[in-house]
Amino acid sequence: MRAPDELRETVEVALAELDFHPSLGGLEAPLRYALDGGGKRIRPVICLATAEAAGGRVEDALPSALAVELVHTFSLVHDDLPALDDDDERRGRASAHVVFGEGVALLAGDALLAEGLRLASGTVESSRELAAATVGMIAGQHLDITAADVALEDLHALKTGRLFAAAVGMGIWAADVPEPAQPPWRAFGEELGVLFQAVDDVIDGDGYALALGEDGARNVAADAARRAHDRLAALNADTAVLAELVDELAVRTA
Amino acid sequence: MRAPDELRETVEVALAELDFHPSLGGLEAPLRYALDGGGKRIRPVICLATAEAAGGRVEDALPSALAVELVHTFSLVHDDLPALDDDDERRGRASAHVVFGEGVALLAGDALLAEGLRLASGTVESSRELAAATVGMIAGQHLDITAADVALEDLHALKTGRLFAAAVGMGIWAADVPEPAQPPWRAFGEELGVLFQAVDDVIDGDGYALALGEDGARNVAADAARRAHDRLAALNADTAVLAELVDELAVRTA
Repeated sequence: MRAPDELRETVEVALAELDFHPSLGGLEAPLRYALDGGGKRIRPVICLATAEAAGGRVEDALPSALAVELVHTFSLVHDDLPALDDDDERRGRASAHVVFGEGVALLAGDALLAEGLRLASGTVESSRELAAATVGMIAGQHLDITAADVALEDLHALKTGRLFAAAVGMGIWAADVPEPAQPPWRAFGEELGVLFQAVDDVIDGDGYALALGEDGARNVAADAARRAHDRLAALNADTAVLAELVDELAVRTA
Repeated sequence: MRAPDELRETVEVALAELDFHPSLGGLEAPLRYALDGGGKRIRPVICLATAEAAGGRVEDALPSALAVELVHTFSLVHDDLPALDDDDERRGRASAHVVFGEGVALLAGDALLAEGLRLASGTVESSRELAAATVGMIAGQHLDITAADVALEDLHALKTGRLFAAAVGMGIWAADVPEPAQPPWRAFGEELGVLFQAVDDVIDGDGYALALGEDGARNVAADAARRAHDRLAALNADTAVLAELVDELAVRTA
């Protein structure tokens, strides 16, 4: 079993060595810029750790893990555009549209999405899982900008939760967990989005922190972490690395 | 063998009845608006006609055909955005971003792409074929807005040609044409993008028509149509409907 930091290093190396489709040409630079933004690679690491906990091989889950990270990065590039959140900075660096212009950033986001789904096309199951999760994520962003009175849980279940759930889902597909044995794994995956988002809201002072106060948001996160640990404990598998990742998500401050 | 108009009707009915992913919610309206724009459905019709000519069933190729149309429509919605071509009209109607706002149009394009690739996820081959073609198409749009001295052939081979080629490619996959028998079919598909684009440029007075004059552009189209017919004649299959579609593409005026 590889520890979280080893898995993270595996993801970093694989991303750096990733062969984009040759037709991408000059668009590769903005894609690499967006991918090099210093993220924590939490989604791909969860995908790999899930595959390994479920008895699979990290190598078999790697295309899926990278695919999830590309789709996540697509969402950041498009969310930062002036037509949406209009953020000029992302993790302390200039956003893609500031560096490359709006048109190129728009296309770079499109290409990250298409490349992500191309990476996931190794099996019908991973293709379908990632494409469906991506649609849900986009629908969540749409709710966020249009629906005034949507419940935070419903919003985040789509906008954040779908991709975390897909990271777990693609991990168990890569480990050949048969469909009837998947629900307990998926129940674990369903908790991660809430956990991630509630902690995010504490850090940023918005979302749950605005709605419930900082302590309220911390309680939402703590409850989700507890449920995630319960889900792991119910699995007949060595889930120590996944438990460590849940704790990482719960205590992170950036 | 269904005639082009029958295939077009099949596509229209299937698009109207298409079940989007349930999570799409309120984003369905802008997707439907963009898809209802009165296009000629030429890519999906070519996909279905190819499948039938290659001995397959129209029904088996239908998800691929719809997937190609969704991806094509994604490219129109994003190309019309102010960050790219900034077109307020598309086929005589207000563009998606004029009706729904820029942010929603951006997300609607994203969702069309994700839904298109989800529709194509029924087989590894169709998934891979469409995702790779989409990356090429996006790279072509990038060349178009950034590269001053790119050859028109290279630009259009990506921006227009890749999706036409994928329509043929997905058609033969749906008909279970084995890989060693695919090259003659793919050679046909490679001619369609040039044919379509040269005629388009005559109609719009740009591209080939600007570079070579209207007669020059007509010659490019005529040469491509002749080559496409030659490719069809070389196939050991009933390609009458495909030949009819080539003629339609060559003489269209809108």
